[in-house]
Amino acid sequence: MKFSFKNDYSEGCHPRILEALAKYNSDQQPGYGEDEYSKKAKEIIRTEIQSPSSDIYFVSGGTQANLIVISSILKPYQCVISAATGHILNNETGAIEATGHKILGVEKADGKLSPSDIIPVLEAHRNIPHQVMPKLVYISNSTELGTVYSKKELQELSVFCKEQDLLLFMDGARLGQAITSENNDLELKDIAELTDVFYLGGTKNGALFGEAVIINSTELKQDFAFNIKQKGALLAKGRVLGIQFLELMTGNLYFDLAHKANQQAMKIKKFMKNSGVEFLSETYTNQIFPVLNHELINKLSENFEFYIWKKIDDSYSAIRLITSWNTSDEAVELFIEAVKKRIK
Amino acid sequence: MKFSFKNDYSEGCHPRILEALAKYNSDQQPGYGEDEYSKKAKEIIRTEIQSPSSDIYFVSGGTQANLIVISSILKPYQCVISAATGHILNNETGAIEATGHKILGVEKADGKLSPSDIIPVLEAHRNIPHQVMPKLVYISNSTELGTVYSKKELQELSVFCKEQDLLLFMDGARLGQAITSENNDLELKDIAELTDVFYLGGTKNGALFGEAVIINSTELKQDFAFNIKQKGALLAKGRVLGIQFLELMTGNLYFDLAHKANQQAMKIKKFMKNSGVEFLSETYTNQIFPVLNHELINKLSENFEFYIWKKIDDSYSAIRLITSWNTSDEAVELFIEAVKKRIK
Amino acid sequence: MKFSFKNDYSEGCHPRILEALAKYNSDQQPGYGEDEYSKKAKEIIRTEIQSPSSDIYFVSGGTQANLIVISSILKPYQCVISAATGHILNNETGAIEATGHKILGVEKADGKLSPSDIIPVLEAHRNIPHQVMPKLVYISNSTELGTVYSKKELQELSVFCKEQDLLLFMDGARLGQAITSENNDLELKDIAELTDVFYLGGTKNGALFGEAVIINSTELKQDFAFNIKQKGALLAKGRVLGIQFLELMTGNLYFDLAHKANQQAMKIKKFMKNSGVEFLSETYTNQIFPVLNHELINKLSENFEFYIWKKIDDSYSAIRLITSWNTSDEAVELFIEAVKKRIK
Amino acid sequence: MKFSFKNDYSEGCHPRILEALAKYNSDQQPGYGEDEYSKKAKEIIRTEIQSPSSDIYFVSGGTQANLIVISSILKPYQCVISAATGHILNNETGAIEATGHKILGVEKADGKLSPSDIIPVLEAHRNIPHQVMPKLVYISNSTELGTVYSKKELQELSVFCKEQDLLLFMDGARLGQAITSENNDLELKDIAELTDVFYLGGTKNGALFGEAVIINSTELKQDFAFNIKQKGALLAKGRVLGIQFLELMTGNLYFDLAHKANQQAMKIKKFMKNSGVEFLSETYTNQIFPVLNHELINKLSENFEFYIWKKIDDSYSAIRLITSWNTSDEAVELFIEAVKKRIK
Repeated sequence: MKFSFKNDYSEGCHPRILEALAKYNSDQQPGYGEDEYSKKAKEIIRTEIQSPSSDIYFVSGGTQANLIVISSILKPYQCVISAATGHILNNETGAIEATGHKILGVEKADGKLSPSDIIPVLEAHRNIPHQVMPKLVYISNSTELGTVYSKKELQELSVFCKEQDLLLFMDGARLGQAITSENNDLELKDIAELTDVFYLGGTKNGALFGEAVIINSTELKQDFAFNIKQKGALLAKGRVLGIQFLELMTGNLYFDLAHKANQQAMKIKKFMKNSGVEFLSETYTNQIFPVLNHELINKLSENFEFYIWKKIDDSYSAIRLITSWNTSDEAVELFIEAVKKRIK
Repeated sequence: MKFSFKNDYSEGCHPRILEALAKYNSDQQPGYGEDEYSKKAKEIIRTEIQSPSSDIYFVSGGTQANLIVISSILKPYQCVISAATGHILNNETGAIEATGHKILGVEKADGKLSPSDIIPVLEAHRNIPHQVMPKLVYISNSTELGTVYSKKELQELSVFCKEQDLLLFMDGARLGQAITSENNDLELKDIAELTDVFYLGGTKNGALFGEAVIINSTELKQDFAFNIKQKGALLAKGRVLGIQFLELMTGNLYFDLAHKANQQAMKIKKFMKNSGVEFLSETYTNQIFPVLNHELINKLSENFEFYIWKKIDDSYSAIRLITSWNTSDEAVELFIEAVKKRIK
Repeated sequence: MKFSFKNDYSEGCHPRILEALAKYNSDQQPGYGEDEYSKKAKEIIRTEIQSPSSDIYFVSGGTQANLIVISSILKPYQCVISAATGHILNNETGAIEATGHKILGVEKADGKLSPSDIIPVLEAHRNIPHQVMPKLVYISNSTELGTVYSKKELQELSVFCKEQDLLLFMDGARLGQAITSENNDLELKDIAELTDVFYLGGTKNGALFGEAVIINSTELKQDFAFNIKQKGALLAKGRVLGIQFLELMTGNLYFDLAHKANQQAMKIKKFMKNSGVEFLSETYTNQIFPVLNHELINKLSENFEFYIWKKIDDSYSAIRLITSWNTSDEAVELFIEAVKKRIK
Repeated sequence: MKFSFKNDYSEGCHPRILEALAKYNSDQQPGYGEDEYSKKAKEIIRTEIQSPSSDIYFVSGGTQANLIVISSILKPYQCVISAATGHILNNETGAIEATGHKILGVEKADGKLSPSDIIPVLEAHRNIPHQVMPKLVYISNSTELGTVYSKKELQELSVFCKEQDLLLFMDGARLGQAITSENNDLELKDIAELTDVFYLGGTKNGALFGEAVIINSTELKQDFAFNIKQKGALLAKGRVLGIQFLELMTGNLYFDLAHKANQQAMKIKKFMKNSGVEFLSETYTNQIFPVLNHELINKLSENFEFYIWKKIDDSYSAIRLITSWNTSDEAVELFIEAVKKRIK
């Protein structure tokens, strides 16, 4: 059996979550998110993000969160601006367009958006009413390329969006990993303050599934539950999501798991850097993109699974390695050993 | 704490499911339903329904199953015919219309559709192209009123649909309860043969969540996975659904749980019938609708939770009692006792 | 060639419109409704309805007007309430549902909605968030059955809608005929005051095509043009619509044409009433529904075209006769003669 | 009054169309495109394109044609491939996405697509089912940049699409201009043979409005009328479209008008070329894009209207000049004179 570095959702969930599910299993609770576990979990998150008036909803996955949030915000003629690498643009089978909205993509090597990326998009969409109206900026943190936003970057983006009457939405499928990255200076409370809506990802950080959508903008809160139900995303046993987030948010588990995932990636990165390996981008989370020669890639493929991300030239390609809350020290060491043997 | 007869999703899941989740927790598996548990569970279901060529997909809940199936089948101008009590008509926040399709409702006291119910709908929609084109018949089994389809009824409906070039879709959120009802004569293989698509409900029969969508019609199979992903219904950890259905379909658990739910309702029904209580409809599954006087209803409400379904007159109303795989004999007896004291 | 009483759009347009099109034909004008004819026509309409701040847009037809207005107003989970006879419910191929919104129909013999019709619909939709949220009341004037709203009725409906936070939209495909009906007491200024949005129909009142959508509610005005363009309804040569409405609104032509249409129907009605014929409903506009024996209907069919509306019993059916701005006195007299010969 | 070279829809229509509208004005005809003028016009078009089995529908404009055709062809998860300059991508307010479908844009300097442009798009969309499925290729002829497809180019594209199970749709808003271009070698019958669906534009070639959608693929024909009605595009007085196309298709008028438009642009182009002016692209239809210095542009703006298309550098910009069936020799000469004086 090869060890897989393909993604951070290859295993089940952190054992404490299974224990909690078992512990509360026989209790009767109201359905559709009205259970007491969901209520408690939301209270803890509100405290954690220091935003007592935020509304919180649990949904099953990232694509679901993205399509519900975006379709609930936009009027039919409004559209989203995203980095060209944005998950919504190329990895969700047109889920956003299926709700009626165009996504305008901006090419960025680091997968992050800044005001200077957005200005030309706004300028190119002034032919009223013949073009869609940009209204929402979608960002991911950490991004699909493993990079993170600094506090300064997010502040500038937030100020710009307010000036331009744009809303700001952060896809936080890997927000735990962003927050616990060694070069991160953002706190959850900053994100609650600087975005209109964001989510805390569970699926890629130790839950069986689940994302906590957090709505900070008063305007967006109204009737949000209708959107969740209409898109088929309101679990009858909402308790399953509530219990998972209750457990993750208790005793720092959520951040411990994300930190562990980052650490394992950083160990591999550090070793490779010291061995002279180059990287496609400079990341400090649980995704790394080392550029290796094809012979080494083939050799590693015998014992490990990972994606070949991008061909560089006839001899070299970048691969993507993702570590998770459950990647063992042993797996990391075996991988490092396997490289070491070949690199010398 | 009052005991709740409000629905069949008040508790967690059958303990065997939690055990199975724990047992496989550390194994690495591919995402998005490609895991080996999902594959095995599908194989078992195909055997159980004696339909080796059916395609099977697991999704999280009933509304999700309904909207994905219906929107994947219909062309923009085509519509669904449903009993007026159909879940899609009145309990899913317009989920079907949100995908662009009208639902034509037919009033039926027992919640079931027959050819004679559908013919007038077809006749009323002949003004081409000024009206929607009926294309899909949606039925529930057991229905939202607890009734079940006989084999003869389903056969007649199936033949009629084929003659009329209509597709037939069975919402099986409570199919276990229908199949194990004491007056059922349908087998799963009949349903696989007589419908174009149906689903086996897990959420209301002992799973944490999950429905197994089973596509029998060759025409509908093509590219179905795209629809699931686009609607945000493809879980990264598809294993969570696979493991649950693998466990439910092993050793008859799925049917044992449904049978248990039915039995508990039938005990209450039998006692009440013997005591002279009338019922809104004659049901043999886990939903019963006794007509009680308001004094008794108020008294029962002190110790039990249930919905008041329909006011009959100034003195009487029908209530809805739902039992589940987890309704204890003790709860049933306590309820019967409570009624007994008052009815004399 | 049989004379047709099937509808009010069987002929071209009033000759003055063709003359105006010819007169302005060579002038260069900006496209997309920015032409001077459209501007002038809108100014005249604003004066006529005594609502200087209303926004006005010209679109090509009624279904187009309905789908653009409704889809621009409602959030994804909101729905429309309509009389069951409403054009949007049964005669527009699911155009409203295709934009994602459910229509709740209310059975009414006269095709008109009052607060007491709407209250039970609101009460039946309180199961938040499992049901759609009623937000818009759609009425037609004159209705699909030829009836008209009195000032008192519209006032009561308007007050009720405001109290219930509902918006009020009047389909005015035959608003000219309503306004010029002999038992009408509504003025255009009342309608502008009492509705959030309505339209003045041209297609069924002497134009080649075109409806003037009039938005009174400030909230609905914002960015409305985007919706028109997105639905493919913004004519490049908007001048064609502008010129037609400019002509219709000049010198009372619009109302003269509608009055003429009504008069011709009333002549036939008066004669038939005097001859003892009964009617399906009491109408005072250009649609009448006399109940005739089948022998007479067959005889009339030899020389006239009309729809058989509703079978009453084995001997009698109601037919629908529609007159238009262009129905000649001669055609009316021939029809009356044909009936006269047979009735007595 | 400045003469406008801004577009080809600044004036009314060719006088013969107005005469025809007047001539048939009093005749009663069935509604919704069942009139005899529409039938005759379709028969003539079928003869002209040598495709007796093609289905033909008249709609009001290009955006309407595009959104109806595309939404009727694609399943929810399928998408369109278009040149980045395609009208549907950037000039229709997200009309295509509003029907649920993504458009994949390909950057092309000449606005035309070839197999080699499409191959990389197909290759980048193989991650099933996480990405949309390319299914339709959208091309314009003449393109938004005034260029035209050669017979060889269209043949290669057609063969490629068939091989790849892609459908081919030609936006013919300016198809008359393409066909009558001096370097065109395509005939209408070739287009009927090589595309699955295309349209003949009237709006930009002398009609008041109207496009003739021509469906060649048997598979696409089924029930197409429903889509037209549902999108609000079925005119009650379909005769208005029928009469226009009947007139345009009689006695070569359609092609004469397009040829005239091309000729006027070519006169200006020829003069400018001889004077040493460079052009943004080499076009042979009624759109030209000369690159002029800003001083000259300002001077010309005093007497003529046109769009500034693209800034080249601090001294030069490309402007867009569009001529029409109604651009007089006098206007062309005045413009040439104005340039001549300045260029010398």
